[in-house]
Amino acid sequence: MAVGVWLFGARGSVAVTAMAGASAVRAGIAGPAGCVTALTPFDGANLPGFAELVFGGHDIVETPVGKRVGALADDGVLPAAVVRAIQADLDAVERSIRPAPRTGTQAVQASVIVEDILAWKRRHRLDHAVAINVASTEPAGSPHPAHTDLDRLEQALAGRETALSPSSLHAYAAMRAGCSFVDFTPSAGAALPALDQLAARERVPYAGRDGKTGETLLRSVLAPMFATRNLPVHSWSGANLLGGSDGASLAHADVNAAKVASKSRVLREILRHQPEGHTRIDFVPDLGEFKTAWDLVTFSGFLGTRMRLEFTWHGCDSALAAPLVLDLARLTTAAHRVGRTGCLSELAFFFKDPLGDEVPGHGLADQWTALCRFAAELGGAAA
Amino acid sequence: MAVGVWLFGARGSVAVTAMAGASAVRAGIAGPAGCVTALTPFDGANLPGFAELVFGGHDIVETPVGKRVGALADDGVLPAAVVRAIQADLDAVERSIRPAPRTGTQAVQASVIVEDILAWKRRHRLDHAVAINVASTEPAGSPHPAHTDLDRLEQALAGRETALSPSSLHAYAAMRAGCSFVDFTPSAGAALPALDQLAARERVPYAGRDGKTGETLLRSVLAPMFATRNLPVHSWSGANLLGGSDGASLAHADVNAAKVASKSRVLREILRHQPEGHTRIDFVPDLGEFKTAWDLVTFSGFLGTRMRLEFTWHGCDSALAAPLVLDLARLTTAAHRVGRTGCLSELAFFFKDPLGDEVPGHGLADQWTALCRFAAELGGAAA
Amino acid sequence: MAVGVWLFGARGSVAVTAMAGASAVRAGIAGPAGCVTALTPFDGANLPGFAELVFGGHDIVETPVGKRVGALADDGVLPAAVVRAIQADLDAVERSIRPAPRTGTQAVQASVIVEDILAWKRRHRLDHAVAINVASTEPAGSPHPAHTDLDRLEQALAGRETALSPSSLHAYAAMRAGCSFVDFTPSAGAALPALDQLAARERVPYAGRDGKTGETLLRSVLAPMFATRNLPVHSWSGANLLGGSDGASLAHADVNAAKVASKSRVLREILRHQPEGHTRIDFVPDLGEFKTAWDLVTFSGFLGTRMRLEFTWHGCDSALAAPLVLDLARLTTAAHRVGRTGCLSELAFFFKDPLGDEVPGHGLADQWTALCRFAAELGGAAA
Amino acid sequence: MAVGVWLFGARGSVAVTAMAGASAVRAGIAGPAGCVTALTPFDGANLPGFAELVFGGHDIVETPVGKRVGALADDGVLPAAVVRAIQADLDAVERSIRPAPRTGTQAVQASVIVEDILAWKRRHRLDHAVAINVASTEPAGSPHPAHTDLDRLEQALAGRETALSPSSLHAYAAMRAGCSFVDFTPSAGAALPALDQLAARERVPYAGRDGKTGETLLRSVLAPMFATRNLPVHSWSGANLLGGSDGASLAHADVNAAKVASKSRVLREILRHQPEGHTRIDFVPDLGEFKTAWDLVTFSGFLGTRMRLEFTWHGCDSALAAPLVLDLARLTTAAHRVGRTGCLSELAFFFKDPLGDEVPGHGLADQWTALCRFAAELGGAAA
Repeated sequence: MAVGVWLFGARGSVAVTAMAGASAVRAGIAGPAGCVTALTPFDGANLPGFAELVFGGHDIVETPVGKRVGALADDGVLPAAVVRAIQADLDAVERSIRPAPRTGTQAVQASVIVEDILAWKRRHRLDHAVAINVASTEPAGSPHPAHTDLDRLEQALAGRETALSPSSLHAYAAMRAGCSFVDFTPSAGAALPALDQLAARERVPYAGRDGKTGETLLRSVLAPMFATRNLPVHSWSGANLLGGSDGASLAHADVNAAKVASKSRVLREILRHQPEGHTRIDFVPDLGEFKTAWDLVTFSGFLGTRMRLEFTWHGCDSALAAPLVLDLARLTTAAHRVGRTGCLSELAFFFKDPLGDEVPGHGLADQWTALCRFAAELGGAAA
Repeated sequence: MAVGVWLFGARGSVAVTAMAGASAVRAGIAGPAGCVTALTPFDGANLPGFAELVFGGHDIVETPVGKRVGALADDGVLPAAVVRAIQADLDAVERSIRPAPRTGTQAVQASVIVEDILAWKRRHRLDHAVAINVASTEPAGSPHPAHTDLDRLEQALAGRETALSPSSLHAYAAMRAGCSFVDFTPSAGAALPALDQLAARERVPYAGRDGKTGETLLRSVLAPMFATRNLPVHSWSGANLLGGSDGASLAHADVNAAKVASKSRVLREILRHQPEGHTRIDFVPDLGEFKTAWDLVTFSGFLGTRMRLEFTWHGCDSALAAPLVLDLARLTTAAHRVGRTGCLSELAFFFKDPLGDEVPGHGLADQWTALCRFAAELGGAAA
Repeated sequence: MAVGVWLFGARGSVAVTAMAGASAVRAGIAGPAGCVTALTPFDGANLPGFAELVFGGHDIVETPVGKRVGALADDGVLPAAVVRAIQADLDAVERSIRPAPRTGTQAVQASVIVEDILAWKRRHRLDHAVAINVASTEPAGSPHPAHTDLDRLEQALAGRETALSPSSLHAYAAMRAGCSFVDFTPSAGAALPALDQLAARERVPYAGRDGKTGETLLRSVLAPMFATRNLPVHSWSGANLLGGSDGASLAHADVNAAKVASKSRVLREILRHQPEGHTRIDFVPDLGEFKTAWDLVTFSGFLGTRMRLEFTWHGCDSALAAPLVLDLARLTTAAHRVGRTGCLSELAFFFKDPLGDEVPGHGLADQWTALCRFAAELGGAAA
Repeated sequence: MAVGVWLFGARGSVAVTAMAGASAVRAGIAGPAGCVTALTPFDGANLPGFAELVFGGHDIVETPVGKRVGALADDGVLPAAVVRAIQADLDAVERSIRPAPRTGTQAVQASVIVEDILAWKRRHRLDHAVAINVASTEPAGSPHPAHTDLDRLEQALAGRETALSPSSLHAYAAMRAGCSFVDFTPSAGAALPALDQLAARERVPYAGRDGKTGETLLRSVLAPMFATRNLPVHSWSGANLLGGSDGASLAHADVNAAKVASKSRVLREILRHQPEGHTRIDFVPDLGEFKTAWDLVTFSGFLGTRMRLEFTWHGCDSALAAPLVLDLARLTTAAHRVGRTGCLSELAFFFKDPLGDEVPGHGLADQWTALCRFAAELGGAAA
């Protein structure tokens, strides 16, 4: 049975890699490497199959998906053979990507989005769809009185104000169209009380935020090591060098600040204090779709002896993020099927800055345990 | 109430740092950084206090402990102020270190050890003692028919043969003297069926082996990250550069092989296959008591995109190992108090190559969970 | 014959290490490691001996030299044994350090400095002295019309304006007191036309600027490797983590910018283009007197194949800079003795941002060749 | 005017990349990145053009060049577009590669090689050719009495003995066929007194050995930095991880030893002592045509302060070596044209273990100066 995946930022590297990868897996020419839900603990969780996912989305960019895929192949992210094999699929997806509305009141823009999604669901006979935000990171938003109450929010949207940042407007519209919602970026997205109320009203689940694919992923396994070994961490510094459009966007100071804030939480929460050191993000176009993160940790042992750990991570963001997008689509869909609504804090394993009051810690291992338990519950509930 | 800690290799860096550190903690001039059992989960586990530990041991080396401590201060492992403050304590310990027996049949040597331990226990009115092997790594031993049966072993020891490697002879003698036993090295130690039978007969617990303090510690948190993220690991290579006497000993090919074998298990068990790559250990005297480990991991993501992780660990083995020696003394003593005998597989958190049929996996997080559960059981049993 | 070395910033880490080191070398308890002029090519260059150097200086800080030396010993920069052995020398130096003047017109401040220097020269019967600026980096200065003409400058100094930055005021006063001048920081110092005129009038040489001791030193040997191997460098990124007072000062945005500007020249000049990438400097107090620099270089080879080089430098700035301060004192004194005046561009080997129209390139090897030729000339001229 | 380049090991990665690259440069679809002789100092040196090089060679392997080129494109060493454009050229080269003779006395094998080369020269109307050894590294050879005298050597070759290693037999046959000879590997090649006599008799120049493309290249710029800054180097350790056929060959202990010996010279010569530390070479097939080298240097500064430098080089051997092969062909041909015979020690810039009594040091900068002077001489002699 087909399951919809609506991507905000549908022409970006992560979205395009996710769609191309799903096609390749469906065609049997690639395996689900990097997909967490392909592991044994999810076997009985009643997740929709990779082959059942049907894509659509919005973007303000107009570069055709086929062209983006070609560029990713040139950059070494997608194998040329895969790209050739999935051409027909990509043409189909291309027809399901709509221009993001950019004029009118926010209420009007939201209506356009709702209509686009509903039309697409009808056309593909989709019972349910998950909307996932993989657009560029936006600057940290300003608080607005309408954020705390759904009624006030809907009044504000109808006025001339810009009450919501784009990511939150996407969350609003997606839920209004009956979709579950996932924020894969550090943007506000669904993380507002008014939108939590909307999720309850529309009876949809949501999850987020900011997919954990590199430096923060490593920090979420290394910090617990220092903590459980009782080794005091004095400083933790990080340099992140990124090419690609993600890097270009993060070169803007306000977007950079939003991303760094999302990254800083994991150390503070696991180590129970904020160690010295800064986390820098710099744009280096030559790195293309790849990203290099270098971290230096200074710590001490028995009787104060000083020691150091350094790591360098050289990763391809799209190749790490795209399979997680498919995982989140499958898990959120399954959660909706068993009647879960509101924040899915059990999905913290995927996020730098996990949403929810009951987050299972910031260490990756605890998050993994919680995720496996969630998979078991999904299996039990569906049985 | 005083608790004995008998160290085989009592004049080595790890032993001396453990003894100096325990004195410093008792004197209130240093905290228990690096001691796992100082963390909250062990608060109610009825562990003996750091101040209750009384040290003694054997060594074939004759350099006085005071001189070794001075050398460690010069190498930056121990602060000069600490060394000055604990001089009296070290003099007391010096009197409890006996020359390791090296002549006569293995039965005779074992008797000397047993007598030395019993005399020390009487002198210090110790109810119980833990013997911990922190001597140099020995070459991998050869199998011997007497290893599988305690009776045959005791007959063999009385003969002219060398039925046991030194570490196993230490384990044998320690248990015969009523001690619990811990092997902090990759040597055979108690890991023979005949010695498991002896532990049952003498009603003592044992644990091991090979303290996990650097490269393998990191591998035990990084490998689960790749596994739970479903990222195929293609190669994992390691270069270990060590100074100090540990490095000098590992410069011997057969000892080197024993150590590398102990290290190789963690990746194979967690990743479910042995990735390509070698683990090298080289002696670089200039590094002194410090050790540098460099690892390169190559892996792939969605659709086969190639990525890399590198880390460099610059650690002081003694400053990492010594607090764990104190932890193991406390935990093994508490286990003995509540009547545990035989292999303590719950202590896998501490070891590269954990002993026991029921080892809670090789990932550090699972081992931590098992250790915390064990602490809770100790608390419950004692209550 | 005694030779004076007057240090602006005399209570800072570099100055104190230089003075302590010179004492230790004189006392025969340490060798001249890190001193370039102790190498064979300088044997016949008629340089003053290390034992002939007599120190004095100004500082706005009041912490006694003896206390600073103790702190450096605690931080592992100076050996405790050395500190004990040179106590008497340090007491003597302490009496030669004067508070930096901070009130009155700049002309008045300059007079105080001149008087302090002349009194010290008389007291120690010094024929000649070199003044070296090792004070904290100052923000990049603003241009001032008086900078281009010595007469206008002297008029401006007598007025209420602040015509010169502190480092340039130091250069002005030092030359007025008949001293040679060296700027070891990225500050303006003597690098103004008016001060070049002053050097000519006073018949003194000067040199600068910004001692090359870490990341830039490495760049000055690695960049020529890429250039002479015709390997196109696409990006060169750097992260510098510093503790100490130097780090604290560089945490200020304007000072940071001045330092980064000084660092950026070497790549552009050697590679003949400015590669992509940023150079960051961050303050991490925990690193103390040490500094960690990490650089990532991306480049390509034949037919565009992409490759990478990474390095991590973990150095102690004082231990690298202090011996160069002694070298510069010796070389500049010898240059003065043979009648050299004005800019000594032959000393480019020592600097990140070398002054002079005839700088022998930015590659370290070319600078070394020029320095050795200069040493030979000094030897020939003196013969 | 056509110039021959005869490659021993003509189907290996370096040879195939060199041939493909020369074609691509000739076709104008790639530039000479990585070719040293494309830099300005060689403009007037009367070198043959890249377009004039005509290739042939021997190999014991039979995989067609076209197939090897395809594999290199799959491994990211050659761009697919280049491979398509040069197909016709590669077919022509394929016809000029002969099976290496493997039976008969060494005299007979040499005759086969001589005949193959002469036939190829006639067919392509080549006045002169350079033979370059890019075959797999061979184990260090044993001394043989015939190595010191050409007459004895020629007698020995006619007998049943194996008087020469393969690389030296290649050098012998190449010179007999009137070719200049270059050894790009650490093998013995022309480095025997008897072959030096042969070069004189045949009036041909030769050069070697072991192309410097990664770790040793870096050591040849970093070691002079430590030396000229008078910073004592205590240890220098290296780990080299290689895939590809070069890696497979170096997995054999005796070949490994020969390579490590070649690498060890540079540090000893530049630093004037052999620092502690080992250089390891390990085969990691997953790295394919790429190589990762990690080095750790420990050194001290003023008053013994301990510091460290680490670097990681991630390079593609073929993309670094192939352009140097073209450089060596051009330079050796030009040397032959102006009448140079015997060892060309001026080409040390290219080699790990440069041959010749008058080698211009082991630092890259001095070697570069010597190379530029040689280029100027070639220009002058030809004028």
